[in-house]
Amino acid sequence: MPHPGYESLLRSAANDAKVISFAGGLPAPETFPRKALGAAAMHAAQSFGHDALQYDWSEGRPALREHIAARLRARGADVVADDVIVTNGAQQALALVLDVLEPPAVQVDPESYSSALQLFRGRGCAPRASEKLALRYAMPAIDNPWGRAMRDAERAEVLDARWVIEDDAYADLRFDGPSLPPLLAEARAKVFHVGSFSKTLSPGLRVGWLVPPKRWRERIKKAKNQRDLQTSGLAQSVVERYLAHTDFDARLARLRGLYGARAAKLTQALREHPALCFVRPAGGFSVWVETTRVGSEADLLARALTAGVAFEPGSLFRCHPRRAIAMRLSFSSLEPSRYVEGVRRLAGLF
Amino acid sequence: MPHPGYESLLRSAANDAKVISFAGGLPAPETFPRKALGAAAMHAAQSFGHDALQYDWSEGRPALREHIAARLRARGADVVADDVIVTNGAQQALALVLDVLEPPAVQVDPESYSSALQLFRGRGCAPRASEKLALRYAMPAIDNPWGRAMRDAERAEVLDARWVIEDDAYADLRFDGPSLPPLLAEARAKVFHVGSFSKTLSPGLRVGWLVPPKRWRERIKKAKNQRDLQTSGLAQSVVERYLAHTDFDARLARLRGLYGARAAKLTQALREHPALCFVRPAGGFSVWVETTRVGSEADLLARALTAGVAFEPGSLFRCHPRRAIAMRLSFSSLEPSRYVEGVRRLAGLF
Repeated sequence: MPHPGYESLLRSAANDAKVISFAGGLPAPETFPRKALGAAAMHAAQSFGHDALQYDWSEGRPALREHIAARLRARGADVVADDVIVTNGAQQALALVLDVLEPPAVQVDPESYSSALQLFRGRGCAPRASEKLALRYAMPAIDNPWGRAMRDAERAEVLDARWVIEDDAYADLRFDGPSLPPLLAEARAKVFHVGSFSKTLSPGLRVGWLVPPKRWRERIKKAKNQRDLQTSGLAQSVVERYLAHTDFDARLARLRGLYGARAAKLTQALREHPALCFVRPAGGFSVWVETTRVGSEADLLARALTAGVAFEPGSLFRCHPRRAIAMRLSFSSLEPSRYVEGVRRLAGLF
Repeated sequence: MPHPGYESLLRSAANDAKVISFAGGLPAPETFPRKALGAAAMHAAQSFGHDALQYDWSEGRPALREHIAARLRARGADVVADDVIVTNGAQQALALVLDVLEPPAVQVDPESYSSALQLFRGRGCAPRASEKLALRYAMPAIDNPWGRAMRDAERAEVLDARWVIEDDAYADLRFDGPSLPPLLAEARAKVFHVGSFSKTLSPGLRVGWLVPPKRWRERIKKAKNQRDLQTSGLAQSVVERYLAHTDFDARLARLRGLYGARAAKLTQALREHPALCFVRPAGGFSVWVETTRVGSEADLLARALTAGVAFEPGSLFRCHPRRAIAMRLSFSSLEPSRYVEGVRRLAGLF
């Protein structure tokens, strides 16, 4: 995904096979169930039932919403299909929350999901990590960029806020086991719960969801309608049919195994280089690396590309600027055989 | 599509086969090229080339953008692929223009596209028909709800504004022949050109586009990125592949014939009932009907549903309220054999 400040550098890295890229945070493309999704898409286009090719209501397809609701109920949340708004990925769900709340500021972790920070700033909603605010954004299950799971005390602290955006995008990719109860299960009336099939199925479909507090539901639906009428019926129908014909939990277990093994392998490679400090992630796609080096991340990235390695600059994920250089290294879509050499090239810059 | 004020009434009509519905403005579902789109979707999901299932850049797929640009060049506009931003339908293109311009008000026609009016109002951008404003929204090729083509003097008047949103959604469905040069061809530097495959291919795909003035391009891309990262890669890839393997102009000629014949048939039925005043449309999906009756459109719609007919209340399309009742009658997706009876039921209410 583009990051305005470094976009041209990262675009050139993406097109250069000689560069070992830890950038992007992309799911492993070899995990996409191409045959099943292709068959589902063929069926969706040719089916005269609930027509995926025609206009549809803004909230999304009922069967898909019921599937999402059932998965949340299985995790302890009080959710019915009617509570779910299907969105054009989790990012649109975040944007819709801002549309209705119009918050002047939002409390975030010191390091947060870069695209959420960009959205907040772009909408005049100042992200702040150092004070208590009425609106709190958090990724309690597995955060980004750290890949940490929040402890109980942290979850309780998050729920102190008046409104909470729970970004659950990586909840199903906790390496140690199935996803835990979301904050939504604890505080249905204050949590805007955001989820996505982008990490677990395919980001190119652009199917995510939002479960708002009931009192905000109609306003969210109206905002969704005003923004783009509806999420792609074809994409929704593909996910709906795929879920109906697949053991999705078995798929998630396989993905947890794959990404967990990759995380272990990357952290093993990092351990050889003490200048690169990190905490082993509990889930997700990335390792957050901090250093004691002070300087320009853009310069470092340019030097890294020359050395044949790419990363995402830490400043993209930081709420407040810091002098020491950090970086997010994504292992999710990079061949594990390239980790050792990639980390060696990186460490050579320090 | 939902219209907040009348949504529950129109939803019940949509689910009742006994109701002859002129509501919705939907393309005829029998025109969807299901086999070709299904095959394109299957190919898109299974192709390892430019991966439709993976994350992609916010502006959209290059081959699709080139196709859109080439079609605009053929109509006289100076556009290259790089100028095109693929959006989640035309509606999102409109919303993105508001994101970057943040206009306090917009000049519109007295009757305008209902979802555009709702978007403007929802964003605190007051639509006004009675004064000259810096931002002008118009559908010069074929407008909605009238189905009229603007005359040269009207086009010139539109171009007096500082910025113009040209909504070209129905341009390819002018009954008399191929689409004419867009305003974009006359004033590249001030026109935000909005288009869509929703009317000519399938609305459920949600693939539209925006060609902004060059100086706004980067800001639009950033806004698109912040809102939802990108448009569905699967949907984009389906359109891209379909266009590459189809004579799209031949398809458009067939659609013009089909909708033109339906328009002629509906206006013929309306001519029997002088209480329903209309102008025969030059293109599009609908006929705009005005009456001299004063009263509540909601009450009229409720009575209409009881009588077994549905329409869209005129107030949804009006910039400023008026006392006389009007309605939009869409012929596009209704079986022509039902027009005479539907109009008879409608006329019976007056």
